[in-house]
Amino acid sequence: MRTVIGVDSGGTSTRAVLADESGRVLGGGRSGTGNPTSSGAAVALASMTEATLSAWRAAGSPACELVVVCGAGVTDPSFGTLLTAALDQGGLPIEARIVGDILGAYFSATAEPDGYVIVAGTGTTAGRIRDGAIMDVADGLGWLLGDGGSGFWLGRQVARAVAADLGGFGPSTALTPLVLQRLPPSPDAIPPWRPEGLHRLLRWTYSIRPVELSTFAPLAFAVAGDEVADEIVRRAAALIVQRLEAVVQDDAGPIVLTGGVLGPGPIADAVFDRWPGRCLRATDGTAGAALLALREVGLPAGRAELDRLLATSGSIGIGS
Amino acid sequence: MRTVIGVDSGGTSTRAVLADESGRVLGGGRSGTGNPTSSGAAVALASMTEATLSAWRAAGSPACELVVVCGAGVTDPSFGTLLTAALDQGGLPIEARIVGDILGAYFSATAEPDGYVIVAGTGTTAGRIRDGAIMDVADGLGWLLGDGGSGFWLGRQVARAVAADLGGFGPSTALTPLVLQRLPPSPDAIPPWRPEGLHRLLRWTYSIRPVELSTFAPLAFAVAGDEVADEIVRRAAALIVQRLEAVVQDDAGPIVLTGGVLGPGPIADAVFDRWPGRCLRATDGTAGAALLALREVGLPAGRAELDRLLATSGSIGIGS
Repeated sequence: MRTVIGVDSGGTSTRAVLADESGRVLGGGRSGTGNPTSSGAAVALASMTEATLSAWRAAGSPACELVVVCGAGVTDPSFGTLLTAALDQGGLPIEARIVGDILGAYFSATAEPDGYVIVAGTGTTAGRIRDGAIMDVADGLGWLLGDGGSGFWLGRQVARAVAADLGGFGPSTALTPLVLQRLPPSPDAIPPWRPEGLHRLLRWTYSIRPVELSTFAPLAFAVAGDEVADEIVRRAAALIVQRLEAVVQDDAGPIVLTGGVLGPGPIADAVFDRWPGRCLRATDGTAGAALLALREVGLPAGRAELDRLLATSGSIGIGS
Repeated sequence: MRTVIGVDSGGTSTRAVLADESGRVLGGGRSGTGNPTSSGAAVALASMTEATLSAWRAAGSPACELVVVCGAGVTDPSFGTLLTAALDQGGLPIEARIVGDILGAYFSATAEPDGYVIVAGTGTTAGRIRDGAIMDVADGLGWLLGDGGSGFWLGRQVARAVAADLGGFGPSTALTPLVLQRLPPSPDAIPPWRPEGLHRLLRWTYSIRPVELSTFAPLAFAVAGDEVADEIVRRAAALIVQRLEAVVQDDAGPIVLTGGVLGPGPIADAVFDRWPGRCLRATDGTAGAALLALREVGLPAGRAELDRLLATSGSIGIGS
């Protein structure tokens, strides 16, 4: 029996599955943040190592051929070598390869070698997949330069709209009470010239890391019918569609959607409406990583193997 | 002879003038950054103290009644008490009062007690002045929540437009070569999937403090006729006008403009066109601070005193 390991590493958690050549999952592992850009290389490497070794041991420590990690925020090409060495130290002699997280997302919804993918979570990245590899990418440029329509983009727009409402230089919006009830009390006295709620928003916003403004993103969907919120959502949908349009070249191939912003709702609807009949939703990135690993070692990696990966990974208790 | 001191403290420099009761400037002083929000309270306090004492000594250390500091970024009301104590330690027993920088900007262009002011530099703040005091403010909320149409706003829009152009998900723009020629070489290898210029922009942007994106602001005006740049400037002008509209309540009183974004050009033109015949340009904030000080101690503080302050402060060598 031949086996491989697939790892999905992100900002919140790192999850790994060990699968046999039929796509049956034999063990899983889970650890903390695995994004080297946001958490540092050492922490990410430790998370990837821990999740991989956990999955391997949970499956009974079988001989295993390859680990494929689909990782957000991995920009250093030598990271795979570091992980190979760390796994060897942990008792698992195996080659580790790292690929972009959008590839894992894509192959967790389809086994087609050619297609497209859009990930819209805290950030936004669209990709063109050709022959199982990332051929072209649009955006993925982070909160200052890009990430149009992302959770950060939405959250920042919500915060700015509420600031303009409270400050009297923008329209009134139903977003305002929703934001205010989420804010802590002001840590200092309210200056006489500033509304109390605006002062709390100001103090909180400049005390957090900017990307944490993405916590306001869900509010944009919570007050449908509010003109300000609806305009924010409409603009986000246009930016997401624009990023996909930059990579979609033909009328064939699936378009895979994933990330919190593209859950059921108006932004996903805009994508479904723009490309009817071609859109699929990705759920479990570890299935895509494991499918890539099967493919890389020359084993069958088609729809049957993907379906088996998805069907068997839910029962191993590593969450989603 | 009665005398007062006016201080204009900002992110770049702190400048002070000592003036007699006629508005004649008798001495000036200059020091470094005086913005407690961006540089810390200790540094700002030291700058204000140094500039004030320099002006006092340059005028021959006369008896002096009051220091008024017009300061950007001063949010702590006890700051005036700290400055009073620091000046006393420096040999100058005098009361120090701190007011918002927009008040100094306003009174450096007019002696009218009622009117309006808009400052658009790195940030954007509009204010309503009533009876010589700030009555209402719009925006001034910093780069994440506000500062619509400011130098940061413009610079960030320029950077995002260039990123979208280079990344293939936005229109081509003449801003791109202008930004690229200002960027340092990449500190690391260019990943194969990313255009070289985009990688340099990405590395540079995430290595600076976000507000430093305002260095790109002047480029928005440098390629008139470019659709992308013209749209950025048009949106900035609309945001600036919107902030003034939030404070302007009637058809009387001057509207004072100041800050790098409101130098001669299309954004200032939009304000002049919206309120024809009412707009004035502020030049030297120390004149406004000194005029406020004269007013506070009960001396005449009208057009004649302002004109004398402006006419005599240029020759004392503290720059602008």
